Amino acid sequence: MTDRYPSRVGSRPSLLDRQDPVVWGGGERGPLDQGQLDRFDRDGLLLMDGLFDTAEVEQLLGVAEDIARRPDVRQSERTVIEPKSERVRSVFEVHRLDDTMRRLAADERLAGAARQILGSDVYLHQSRVNFKPAIHGQGFFWHSDFETWHTEDGMPSMRAVSFSVALTRNLPHNGPLLVIPGSHRTFVSCVGETPEDNYKESLRTQEIGTPDGDSLRELSERAGGELAAQVGPAGSVAVFDCNAMHGSNSNITTYPRSNVFFVYNSVENTLAQPFSATKPRPDFIAARDFTAV
Amino acid sequence: MTDRYPSRVGSRPSLLDRQDPVVWGGGERGPLDQGQLDRFDRDGLLLMDGLFDTAEVEQLLGVAEDIARRPDVRQSERTVIEPKSERVRSVFEVHRLDDTMRRLAADERLAGAARQILGSDVYLHQSRVNFKPAIHGQGFFWHSDFETWHTEDGMPSMRAVSFSVALTRNLPHNGPLLVIPGSHRTFVSCVGETPEDNYKESLRTQEIGTPDGDSLRELSERAGGELAAQVGPAGSVAVFDCNAMHGSNSNITTYPRSNVFFVYNSVENTLAQPFSATKPRPDFIAARDFTAV
Repeated sequence: MTDRYPSRVGSRPSLLDRQDPVVWGGGERGPLDQGQLDRFDRDGLLLMDGLFDTAEVEQLLGVAEDIARRPDVRQSERTVIEPKSERVRSVFEVHRLDDTMRRLAADERLAGAARQILGSDVYLHQSRVNFKPAIHGQGFFWHSDFETWHTEDGMPSMRAVSFSVALTRNLPHNGPLLVIPGSHRTFVSCVGETPEDNYKESLRTQEIGTPDGDSLRELSERAGGELAAQVGPAGSVAVFDCNAMHGSNSNITTYPRSNVFFVYNSVENTLAQPFSATKPRPDFIAARDFTAV
Repeated sequence: MTDRYPSRVGSRPSLLDRQDPVVWGGGERGPLDQGQLDRFDRDGLLLMDGLFDTAEVEQLLGVAEDIARRPDVRQSERTVIEPKSERVRSVFEVHRLDDTMRRLAADERLAGAARQILGSDVYLHQSRVNFKPAIHGQGFFWHSDFETWHTEDGMPSMRAVSFSVALTRNLPHNGPLLVIPGSHRTFVSCVGETPEDNYKESLRTQEIGTPDGDSLRELSERAGGELAAQVGPAGSVAVFDCNAMHGSNSNITTYPRSNVFFVYNSVENTLAQPFSATKPRPDFIAARDFTAV
């Protein structure tokens, strides 16, 4: 298979044009209207307030916190512990841990929108809950998820989409998701080689596969200096393209920031061998069960 | 001298009521109107856009950058280098390094406002330029400046005020100054002892003298969840009380954030011996030349 998005192979970073559509849909019916699809196509991002109501969100937050408190979960490899505070930062594969999360993953507001965007049936490539703690919440440096999913998981094309459901308020200052609008149209080919079991480190602090300063500045300029942030009440949803350049700052506020996160991949884009790693990452981060949602 | 604001002496943090006025002025004439003085009294913070015009700001930024490039400055003890990037983060005592900065420190818009707030002549306790780099700009954890100025510098009363002049745009997402409004009315007595030469570490990353989580949450609740941020165009100014609890998040954006910073202290509040440290900090951080501006 030709590698249309080579990364972690050269000695210099480069910017490559996207070879794939952003919106693959050909008239699939679903929850998004044409204006929303157009915005997503343009920005690689769609922000929707109030997609889940207060009662739903409260239940989901309760379920997420229950999951994080389970001793078996805390000790599981699928759980990421915050380096400084020793608190649970992320739990992967939540749709397999809990029925509410499983149902949420299949909810038409999310899965239906994913089918519309990707123009096919979809399966869950990854799911997780994220808890960005208050006061000592760590930021996460800029990255394209696709860069990792391609190099380490063997995802061939840019035909996957992420949904982040806010379980708490996302404020300008509690480390919200930041996206460079339009960055999804450019693939930043990164330098460096994937270390063995890189995911163990990269889930805490990603270094390999992150863009260099010049590439970031170029993406930022192409966006005309615009920067989009997922700011909104609990229940709001950010939909972002697999190649959107995103990250977050730290959170010193007393307001934690939690969300649940689903990645849908097209059933026509299932994983092959990693393009730049010696072995695939574990299933709990990069599913190889391609059953449609 | 009785220590009305004991800190770094006990084994448990505590919240003490402020024993000093916030606005000490008794009708001094100056650039601030009564509404501004009232807001400052209430919040411990005053944000003013457009206090310096574009031409002035451009000149100031140029001067600040020239100072940071001077080889003698880079090697000076008065300069703080960013741990990761090795770039200049702060240069202290800029009003002694450069004539433009000396004139700026005496500018009526700053020094006049300080005299109004503090109700007396004022001198410069500290001056510096800060460069928060783009992309890898480090945040700074919550702290009250007065806590350090009291314990390490021997400043007796809360009768000092800081002015931060924005030399670049301060955006919601490039790590702006955050202040908990009203926090200046409460002194957080911190635990821990001041290490020898603590300033060498604390200017990079402050740990001793920072508030615990419970105290922070309490201040945050007393503020009704409000959080103020210095967001605005270059040329805007934030005035904040010496005891205002403030900090900043990291900056992963491609937009650096620079400001010049002056601390005025009342000539009736000059430094004594440190209240909780074995020896005073050097003059370039805590001036002992009390000549009025």
